Amino acid sequence: MKKVGILGGGQLGMLLSQSIARLGGEAIIYEPNPTAPALRTVNQSFNANWDDKNALTKFFQKCDVVTYEFENVPSTAIAHVANLRPIFPSLSVLSTTQNRAVEKKFLKDSKLPHVNFAVVNHPEELIKAASELTFPLISKSALGGYDGKFQEFIPDSTHLANLASSLTPNLLPIVLEKAVDLHLELSCITARSSHGEEIVFPVLQNVHRDHILDTTLIPAQISPQLEKAIHDLALAAARKLDVVGLLCTEFFITKNTKKAFTGYVCEDFTIYINEFAPRPHNSGHVTMAACSLSQFDALARLLLNIPLTQPRLLAPGYFCMGNLLGELWHGHKELSLASLTNYPEIIELTLYGKNEARPKRKMGHFITYSTNPQQALSAAIAFKHQLGKIAIR
Amino acid sequence: MKKVGILGGGQLGMLLSQSIARLGGEAIIYEPNPTAPALRTVNQSFNANWDDKNALTKFFQKCDVVTYEFENVPSTAIAHVANLRPIFPSLSVLSTTQNRAVEKKFLKDSKLPHVNFAVVNHPEELIKAASELTFPLISKSALGGYDGKFQEFIPDSTHLANLASSLTPNLLPIVLEKAVDLHLELSCITARSSHGEEIVFPVLQNVHRDHILDTTLIPAQISPQLEKAIHDLALAAARKLDVVGLLCTEFFITKNTKKAFTGYVCEDFTIYINEFAPRPHNSGHVTMAACSLSQFDALARLLLNIPLTQPRLLAPGYFCMGNLLGELWHGHKELSLASLTNYPEIIELTLYGKNEARPKRKMGHFITYSTNPQQALSAAIAFKHQLGKIAIR
Repeated sequence: MKKVGILGGGQLGMLLSQSIARLGGEAIIYEPNPTAPALRTVNQSFNANWDDKNALTKFFQKCDVVTYEFENVPSTAIAHVANLRPIFPSLSVLSTTQNRAVEKKFLKDSKLPHVNFAVVNHPEELIKAASELTFPLISKSALGGYDGKFQEFIPDSTHLANLASSLTPNLLPIVLEKAVDLHLELSCITARSSHGEEIVFPVLQNVHRDHILDTTLIPAQISPQLEKAIHDLALAAARKLDVVGLLCTEFFITKNTKKAFTGYVCEDFTIYINEFAPRPHNSGHVTMAACSLSQFDALARLLLNIPLTQPRLLAPGYFCMGNLLGELWHGHKELSLASLTNYPEIIELTLYGKNEARPKRKMGHFITYSTNPQQALSAAIAFKHQLGKIAIR
Repeated sequence: MKKVGILGGGQLGMLLSQSIARLGGEAIIYEPNPTAPALRTVNQSFNANWDDKNALTKFFQKCDVVTYEFENVPSTAIAHVANLRPIFPSLSVLSTTQNRAVEKKFLKDSKLPHVNFAVVNHPEELIKAASELTFPLISKSALGGYDGKFQEFIPDSTHLANLASSLTPNLLPIVLEKAVDLHLELSCITARSSHGEEIVFPVLQNVHRDHILDTTLIPAQISPQLEKAIHDLALAAARKLDVVGLLCTEFFITKNTKKAFTGYVCEDFTIYINEFAPRPHNSGHVTMAACSLSQFDALARLLLNIPLTQPRLLAPGYFCMGNLLGELWHGHKELSLASLTNYPEIIELTLYGKNEARPKRKMGHFITYSTNPQQALSAAIAFKHQLGKIAIR
């Protein structure tokens, strides 16, 4: 039986480990947190720190192939064991996508559409870097940022001056980006195998709230032309990065085609690639119910040498995934789910079994289905609203 | 975190354990076979024999609630630990459904439709028991039989005499049944919670081959009247048995309404309940892709006190599940899946990861989808045929 190592044991690792087991393989998890969700869905795991070279070596030796479920795996930590076993996607992909400055440079060098940016390596470079762009700006940490962590909106020069005075070297490097007037956020997942197979998932339409993914709708409410452009760009990026594995590409869509700059104009829209995730992605949860192949099964298949098939929508309607964040637990150990039966649109419920429901922590998700996109979306929002207003018992 | 014990670690236990983990619980497996599929999808398991009272006691003490994934769990073996923790479905349900003679008596006493039968407890009773029925007959072992094991077709008195001369006490008791002229085989899964919730799945249409389930089609190609009768009978049986958990009821449908005897006549058909399985069922695999709630999620939900919602079909077309038996492996360690890409109808593939692909052993399954029932079915048959004719490499 083929053994697939997964670096990281969060919900993405848990769902991936389940696909691996359902395709006849065995998943082994490496994860520092002893209460991480994926540890209870595998028989073998390594509960050790990222700098534990001995544990990492033993983990790699146990596996036939290794992947990762989040891109903040310290690539320096695994560099010394990386040649023990194949890692998919490669460490080169990981090091490009885990550093926003390197990722932006990759987009620029590859002539892929992206928002104008400048990299700040030293505090004193901030003002000059900003002068190359026009307000409003957003500063983003190059390393370790996700779900909006370490992001700041900079509307004008006063804010910039404030940031300049408080910027300490430990926050650097940062990437300054031109803030775009968002019309839509889309994502597109591709998978490529080591045998040259390539698949592209239907485009996903995302709504973020406080920088955290709130809902994902599939199929996205976009024209066939825009869908094709997104598919082509996602695939072009995966090829350019030479990804063997999954790649989720996140896109910004604006309606401003006059100042497209380094964007890609398609019909009345300008497309920018925001960032990449070379792993299963939160927005891709919806593929578990919506598609003929889920993102997790796609990755498991290519790691286990099972042929990939082109994912397509299973039903003629619309699927909407909603994240369940910790605040909906209202400080309780368990989510109060009595209202579940009031929403017949809900066709899937997943709870990650995390030990503590902290605010903003991703604790679970659900999926709605309707023949009407607005109903799929509004049922998801109404269910979350209902969970949010439950009085403390 | 709620801990759910599962007695048995086959593919049904594996898929159930995954649903439990995806609903925030933890599954613990008790299974004698060290290479059973479910052992690699849980962190905690007991690899011990059914008569190991010490291990069974420790297992029960670790769990909050216990269920089982096959009905041949020796109810005598767990009788002494049964009051340590709640068992769903109850031991009373288990003991009724694990003994075909008791099950038949239950059907008769409950006035539920069933094929005429006679129980043979001693070899010398065979001829007299057969005389109460009319040929052709089928003899079935009362205990431990599944997938047609220990079944024999008895067309006439010569065959009966042969059987009588070879019948040894170790094969007894057996149930003699009137063989019916099968028009259709259907199954229907119901779930009931300890809070009085009840759900019924869409009816499944099954085809057996050599007594082993070959394909399951959903929705069944039957009239609304017949569907309603099946739903009502399945629910009536679950209530009468007082099942808390899943109950799969298997039905025989004949076109002979003149000699319905103890059957239930609905339109041009006579319905008989063949048997029960108080657990996830092979035919129910199709619900994982086809329904808004799978049989595994339904059982996991009720064990974890999460509300049940009425399962319905996700798409307006037809889903067909095909079993993958060991002979398709052609003696190899792995199934040759190159033809997978030739069948775009296939929307799900599951491999159980069993260590040895013996003929007739259930090794995996797949699901097709089409807006046309015949195409869903014929794609499934064609894919299996393709796998079957692959030359030995």
